[in-house]
Amino acid sequence: MSVKETIDIFHRGRFCLVQPVQRGHRAGIDAMILASCVPHGFMGKVADLGSGAGAAGLAVLSRCPEACVTLVESSPFMLSFTKKTLAHPYNAEICQRACIVAADVTLIGQARHKAVLADSSFDFVIMNPPFNRPIDTRTPDCEKAKAHVMCKGLFETWLRTAEAIVQPRGGLGLIARPSSITEILSALDGRFGGIKIVPVYPRYSLASIRIIIAATRSSRATTQILPPLILHGEEGNAFLPRAEEINNGQLSLWNGVSLN
Amino acid sequence: MSVKETIDIFHRGRFCLVQPVQRGHRAGIDAMILASCVPHGFMGKVADLGSGAGAAGLAVLSRCPEACVTLVESSPFMLSFTKKTLAHPYNAEICQRACIVAADVTLIGQARHKAVLADSSFDFVIMNPPFNRPIDTRTPDCEKAKAHVMCKGLFETWLRTAEAIVQPRGGLGLIARPSSITEILSALDGRFGGIKIVPVYPRYSLASIRIIIAATRSSRATTQILPPLILHGEEGNAFLPRAEEINNGQLSLWNGVSLN
Repeated sequence: MSVKETIDIFHRGRFCLVQPVQRGHRAGIDAMILASCVPHGFMGKVADLGSGAGAAGLAVLSRCPEACVTLVESSPFMLSFTKKTLAHPYNAEICQRACIVAADVTLIGQARHKAVLADSSFDFVIMNPPFNRPIDTRTPDCEKAKAHVMCKGLFETWLRTAEAIVQPRGGLGLIARPSSITEILSALDGRFGGIKIVPVYPRYSLASIRIIIAATRSSRATTQILPPLILHGEEGNAFLPRAEEINNGQLSLWNGVSLN
Repeated sequence: MSVKETIDIFHRGRFCLVQPVQRGHRAGIDAMILASCVPHGFMGKVADLGSGAGAAGLAVLSRCPEACVTLVESSPFMLSFTKKTLAHPYNAEICQRACIVAADVTLIGQARHKAVLADSSFDFVIMNPPFNRPIDTRTPDCEKAKAHVMCKGLFETWLRTAEAIVQPRGGLGLIARPSSITEILSALDGRFGGIKIVPVYPRYSLASIRIIIAATRSSRATTQILPPLILHGEEGNAFLPRAEEINNGQLSLWNGVSLN
């Protein structure tokens, strides 16, 4: 059975993604915002946990010419597209700095080491956990107390891996739904500090649809809530200038923001 | 020794506060924003925990003509001003709906009941915990692991009392520093749900200086991050229109906000 695929252009033509049309997670603005957590001019090794076809990771490569990225994905279906994306001639130059690891982010200990995710081996970890996949859907099971604990375990397991593979003082960036904030902050506690929360709003007058949380391993710095990212004006679907520049890889999320 | 005091007008002349000039916490925009957590047209009993001279409680009375407020304060020094505020002829009308309880918010069990803070006896609790007082200052002791636990206990003890005294499905509103968000969400977990977080920014481009967190006792509704409250434009010290209306008791924090 063949799967229909599309080739989508990002960063105003600086890279493309080969993605399935119907099944699997299709990348868009979420991945571009996540990639924008990595500071401008960043040099070092980035792990993109749950990379899908590679959108966030390639967006980092495109904006940060001295970064290399390891794309970590467990789904064989999505990995087939990650491979096509990296092999696409359009991406030949930036993908010299990319590699793929087929592994489950929730692996621990020796199993994780065997998967070539060595302890303290990355300078920055980005992650877009599968909050749109069944595990986080509000099914009746998730409402039950016992199942709730399982649902709650998602960020705990992903952040445990992030803590293990990033070096001390290394960075973390994740994108999630605002409804997960308690679980995320609880899982970060004692592992990462210097937490920076950026609420992402579709429009100024609507509730936030995503949060970006950035942090530093073993830091004891204070948690901050930084200026919001607002995607659209009160009318129409065009991005506001800052959102447009972030979507196109011209700015990091921190450009122009006072970090105290 | 006499203490210099001032009489400060709030809500465009609808009430006044008698406050010490030099010692103790002086009320301002924080208390007005906190009061704005109580929905417009609210009817019922409100407890203002750590009320100081009464600023937030009186702001609720001024905007919600069918609310009554119990001001809970432990400091004899501040209580002397709470009493003067309630006795001031200027406040005669709204203060018919106010009473004072001299009690420590951290009391538990029988001691709390004896202080006339009965279980499930309020419809809404507001609190401005003493985050500017020594317990929350980042002293070297607070940095130590053991002392850190003590410092962390502030919201835990205050929210334990809030949970006890508010009725099931009753409301909560608090104002705090963004740096306390992990501690607050952890203390709310299992006690309050339907959490609504509103980041308060001094200006659009600066980090948040306060968070408002509202919640409902025993609710299982999802946590939301609502549109930010931005106090000032990029230049000057005048309040933006929405902040001005909240400061003057013309709007609640929820007016005009889509709550899904």
